[in-house]
Amino acid sequence: MSRAAKVFPTDRVSLREVGLRDGLQLVRQFPDTAAKQEWVEREYAAGVRYFEAGSFLPASRFPQFADVRAIVSAVQGKGAYATALALNERGAEDALQANVDDIMFVISATEGHSQANTRRSRQEAVDMLARIVAMRDAAGPDGPVITAGIAMAFGCSIEGRVDHAEVLRLVEACAQAGADVVALADTVGYAGPRDVAQLFSASAKLVADLPLGVHLHDTRGMAIANAAAALDQGVRLLDGSLGGLGGCPFAPGATGNVVFEDLVFLCEGMGFPTGIDIEALVDVRSILARTMPEEKLYGGLARSGLPKVSI
Amino acid sequence: MSRAAKVFPTDRVSLREVGLRDGLQLVRQFPDTAAKQEWVEREYAAGVRYFEAGSFLPASRFPQFADVRAIVSAVQGKGAYATALALNERGAEDALQANVDDIMFVISATEGHSQANTRRSRQEAVDMLARIVAMRDAAGPDGPVITAGIAMAFGCSIEGRVDHAEVLRLVEACAQAGADVVALADTVGYAGPRDVAQLFSASAKLVADLPLGVHLHDTRGMAIANAAAALDQGVRLLDGSLGGLGGCPFAPGATGNVVFEDLVFLCEGMGFPTGIDIEALVDVRSILARTMPEEKLYGGLARSGLPKVSI
Repeated sequence: MSRAAKVFPTDRVSLREVGLRDGLQLVRQFPDTAAKQEWVEREYAAGVRYFEAGSFLPASRFPQFADVRAIVSAVQGKGAYATALALNERGAEDALQANVDDIMFVISATEGHSQANTRRSRQEAVDMLARIVAMRDAAGPDGPVITAGIAMAFGCSIEGRVDHAEVLRLVEACAQAGADVVALADTVGYAGPRDVAQLFSASAKLVADLPLGVHLHDTRGMAIANAAAALDQGVRLLDGSLGGLGGCPFAPGATGNVVFEDLVFLCEGMGFPTGIDIEALVDVRSILARTMPEEKLYGGLARSGLPKVSI
Repeated sequence: MSRAAKVFPTDRVSLREVGLRDGLQLVRQFPDTAAKQEWVEREYAAGVRYFEAGSFLPASRFPQFADVRAIVSAVQGKGAYATALALNERGAEDALQANVDDIMFVISATEGHSQANTRRSRQEAVDMLARIVAMRDAAGPDGPVITAGIAMAFGCSIEGRVDHAEVLRLVEACAQAGADVVALADTVGYAGPRDVAQLFSASAKLVADLPLGVHLHDTRGMAIANAAAALDQGVRLLDGSLGGLGGCPFAPGATGNVVFEDLVFLCEGMGFPTGIDIEALVDVRSILARTMPEEKLYGGLARSGLPKVSI
């Protein structure tokens, strides 16, 4: 069994709560450690088993992630899997020391966004990915999954249109650099379901052995349709955030992630059991409402509840 | 060319604004006739060519539709097509006299909803549909399209689960009764994209000659995904309402229709030209905000605008 398959089995969907990282990237207020731990505990009780716990970035600039180690521990203490974001080797080193289950390393699909977001070229990012994989391998056989997340894969707030060929070249380069998983991100909500179907179909042909993930933002209301298209193409690792919290500080116009509870409803309706109790999940929104009263929360399930008679 | 194809060509999408009818079914305040005319005029200028203009119901109970004739005239005066709802022969007679382009006659997918909504059985409704078709035929060769709308086709607020076989039986009965178009409605937002794909695929096999329409509510955030699934199955007539306005007075828990402007964005992204200027369409929301300040409007395009660089 591959390293990735141990964490993200390919025979069922893995739904990841990214609100604790992507959801907190832009907020002015954020939950304290105890509230984050309660968030994790209550989502775990609802059936959630994957969490992006935070980011290994300088705490001086990103105080909302200063407690990332405590959140990784909270997730793993429950028996769930913790992903953490790392944007360079120092972050990856910290993530390795924190024994995360999955390191998310982000590469931009476009040169313009790569430079704006990280001050490095895409090739330099791929080279860094290879070094992070080598660091992980050097640390022994039990190290984390390394996921390459390709930001702006469906359109870029800086460069606009993104050619599929450019993205596919990066997908292949990430695979060659040793990534265990490649996730395609619609960072600023440009995608429609046909784009999603085409890009995942082509990616799967290119790197058949590599699990693919999808990270969607609901900027223009297309995220659930795009998730359905990704599921139809065999994608089984999907990110979302409770209430659609989230955005990207380097992506003007980006709004929240796909609404996690609606994503669960979609999966169940498409015949993919999630093990998640949607009503219990919706209840966890109270933590967000309490600790971040300025943040607008989205979602159909929270508005309308489950169908009265289960179908 | 069939009667339906003259109004709803099968080689491109027909997107219908139903906010003037379905969107006003539940509201406490509603736009006056001049505001409705402005709504029609500005959406026409944005490229919209199909409107559900109102409903032929007793004005004493539904004052929001008392001006339906004036709105039909406003729509047709621009050269667009006007649909009107009729729930019985008296309403159909009024619609015929008003020279609408399309009469929408609604039949419930379940016996429970049929009785609650109209105090008649489904079979009685099918018989009434046949009589309405006969009335239209008796009035000459230039009469309107008769559309049979099957409410609760994907789940019922009263009966819960709805078997596809029951719906398919009704689709066939409507075709035999002489309907020119059959529209399947997810009245209370129970559907997911797989349900939609399966039911339209089976319906198309059953009544190959008959154009199919889809009417979606976004109760649980699935409407855009369901629209994509319907498009993938060849459905080319899709309803929506500006800002997602709307609901059903007989369907507890029903919320608004699929957001029209997001539906346009979906279609364009899937390669179906709509002829609609999304930014001009979004601007028309100001009429709704002004005349119905209590109504919550939804939508991704209104929140985020078009992608900065067109893709």
